[in-house]
Amino acid sequence: MDAVYTNRLNALRLRLKRENVAAFLVAHPADLRYLTGFSGDSGLLLVAARTVVLFTDGRYTLQARSETRKVSVVGSQGPLSPAAGAWLNQHRIHKIGFNPEHHTVAEFRALRQACGKGIGWEPLSGTIEELRGVKDDAEIAQMRRAAALAGDVMEHALGFLKPGVRELEIAAELDYQMRKRGASGPAFEAIVASGPRSALPHARPTAKRLKKNELVVLDLGAILGGYCSDLTRTTFLGRAPKRIREWYAAVREAQAAGAGAARQGVPCAEVDRAARMALAGRGLDGYFTHSTGHGIGLEVHEWPRLASGQRQALRAGQVVTIEPGVYVPGIGGIRIEDEVLIRRNGCEFLTRVPRDLVEL
Amino acid sequence: MDAVYTNRLNALRLRLKRENVAAFLVAHPADLRYLTGFSGDSGLLLVAARTVVLFTDGRYTLQARSETRKVSVVGSQGPLSPAAGAWLNQHRIHKIGFNPEHHTVAEFRALRQACGKGIGWEPLSGTIEELRGVKDDAEIAQMRRAAALAGDVMEHALGFLKPGVRELEIAAELDYQMRKRGASGPAFEAIVASGPRSALPHARPTAKRLKKNELVVLDLGAILGGYCSDLTRTTFLGRAPKRIREWYAAVREAQAAGAGAARQGVPCAEVDRAARMALAGRGLDGYFTHSTGHGIGLEVHEWPRLASGQRQALRAGQVVTIEPGVYVPGIGGIRIEDEVLIRRNGCEFLTRVPRDLVEL
Repeated sequence: MDAVYTNRLNALRLRLKRENVAAFLVAHPADLRYLTGFSGDSGLLLVAARTVVLFTDGRYTLQARSETRKVSVVGSQGPLSPAAGAWLNQHRIHKIGFNPEHHTVAEFRALRQACGKGIGWEPLSGTIEELRGVKDDAEIAQMRRAAALAGDVMEHALGFLKPGVRELEIAAELDYQMRKRGASGPAFEAIVASGPRSALPHARPTAKRLKKNELVVLDLGAILGGYCSDLTRTTFLGRAPKRIREWYAAVREAQAAGAGAARQGVPCAEVDRAARMALAGRGLDGYFTHSTGHGIGLEVHEWPRLASGQRQALRAGQVVTIEPGVYVPGIGGIRIEDEVLIRRNGCEFLTRVPRDLVEL
Repeated sequence: MDAVYTNRLNALRLRLKRENVAAFLVAHPADLRYLTGFSGDSGLLLVAARTVVLFTDGRYTLQARSETRKVSVVGSQGPLSPAAGAWLNQHRIHKIGFNPEHHTVAEFRALRQACGKGIGWEPLSGTIEELRGVKDDAEIAQMRRAAALAGDVMEHALGFLKPGVRELEIAAELDYQMRKRGASGPAFEAIVASGPRSALPHARPTAKRLKKNELVVLDLGAILGGYCSDLTRTTFLGRAPKRIREWYAAVREAQAAGAGAARQGVPCAEVDRAARMALAGRGLDGYFTHSTGHGIGLEVHEWPRLASGQRQALRAGQVVTIEPGVYVPGIGGIRIEDEVLIRRNGCEFLTRVPRDLVEL
């Protein structure tokens, strides 16, 4: 694994050189993990041309030393910003990059106070996000395993749904099944939304019991070996009426259209547009109220976003979700979500649960 | 419930008046919930003398309208900072308070750009945290229920521990039992740390199996009706040797000393000192490597902290943990943690699981 982290650090250094900054200050936990293997919640990492220093609080010092190689770990009793600032000052680094989305106003003030006025701060958003977007082979293998685990839990859950069961009980069962299969936890709070509640794209599970002749949306994901999965299926408890079948077919078509458009070189917005166009063909685009997908990896929502206005091109090795939906207030919602791996000439589904409408 | 939120908003307004600012910009989700009832993850709330405006993204608009009363909800398609900034500019608010710990550098730049230069920004830390620290009767009732739930799950878990079971399986069972009893989820990732791993205060559960003659630390909490609980017990799988019994007795004594010191008017640091002194009496204070406790409520870690240097006085109605521990590297750790409600003349334990050493 050492070579993996060295490669990632060197890729970052190459970009820093291009941006003409001497070092980068990393604060986001998923970025710390990506660059060094450190899995703690709290740390500040300085990546300079020849040195890598990790400031972390006392609770994590031992863990940081055992998880990383070739990283100087500095344990700190108090807040990390002053310690990192003092180091910068001492090592005469004059220009440093940072991501303004990953530091609070309070932390940044403390940093600047500690390192004095001789240092220029260069806001650089997206630098590490872009690197993380393209997965290497080991990451893809891990994401396949996380996706397979989500699929197993989904198939288990479909056997468990029936009228009378509470949304919250199902959510608890999902969590339990993930962990039983080796997940360190859920990648996000699972959505179990039934009946009219399925029309809320981000509904939290409630004490409501499932009823006959209702839609049920299940949206779940697990963390396995640090990597996330994300999978949604929609079922109908009973025999679905014609209207529901039509909506379902439209969403499935929209997902197929999105996946059909997804390949290296295609702008992210184009995948969103393809899915939306398919729904528009059936007059349903007005009911698709969120964007089509997002990158996924160490975090469940990563760069890039598949949404209108996102002009950057997809790249081979990215893993993104494609998750169109139709949400009709007061009646119900349908969403189908899968993860796909972007390839040079198309994309490959990592989640492999059947996508037909399940009637239970 | 309307009166509850009105009271909280008015208490905040009183403080703003004292600080001589015309409004406060709230960004922290737990603060939004405390002040308005809105339980979404993303929002910016402006509290002015006569108006309360909540900016939230499209996903949460319906939810925000149904959860709040007397709050103008403004749905936004893009980032919230520009929308809030434009409102401030339009309403000619000249001085506004904000918590610099709750805004990123990027958000704050967008805010300042959108509202122009006529506005003064006053960094105010701890304003809402202090209000939230003192719980009202409805909050205390809810926290009792959350604490009782954690206690039930702990007692269930103690029946489940035995050699051969994996830490991760126990963690999954804890989660499952919480949700089955009505929790919306765990308040934090449960700690199940056995053998030498129990000497790591923040160990994450692993695939390690429990063994005979080991210490096991269980640290768990649930969210019930929005409020968190937090409870730790330490058990021994077998008959504990004399040394372990002595350490356990010392930790229990330290907790009793901390609880004995806890009452309205006593500085927070004094509770920490009392617990530490009890351990020092047995030469064990060097093995107590974290602070004695923390406030708990809508979040599992809240203001105040019970740690050295914390001079502010405890107030009746605060709920805090008292959780001394002894951690001996390579051998194992012991922690006993309970939640107490601060009263005028002492404190009351909200968690009621027996505190004797359990030998299984």
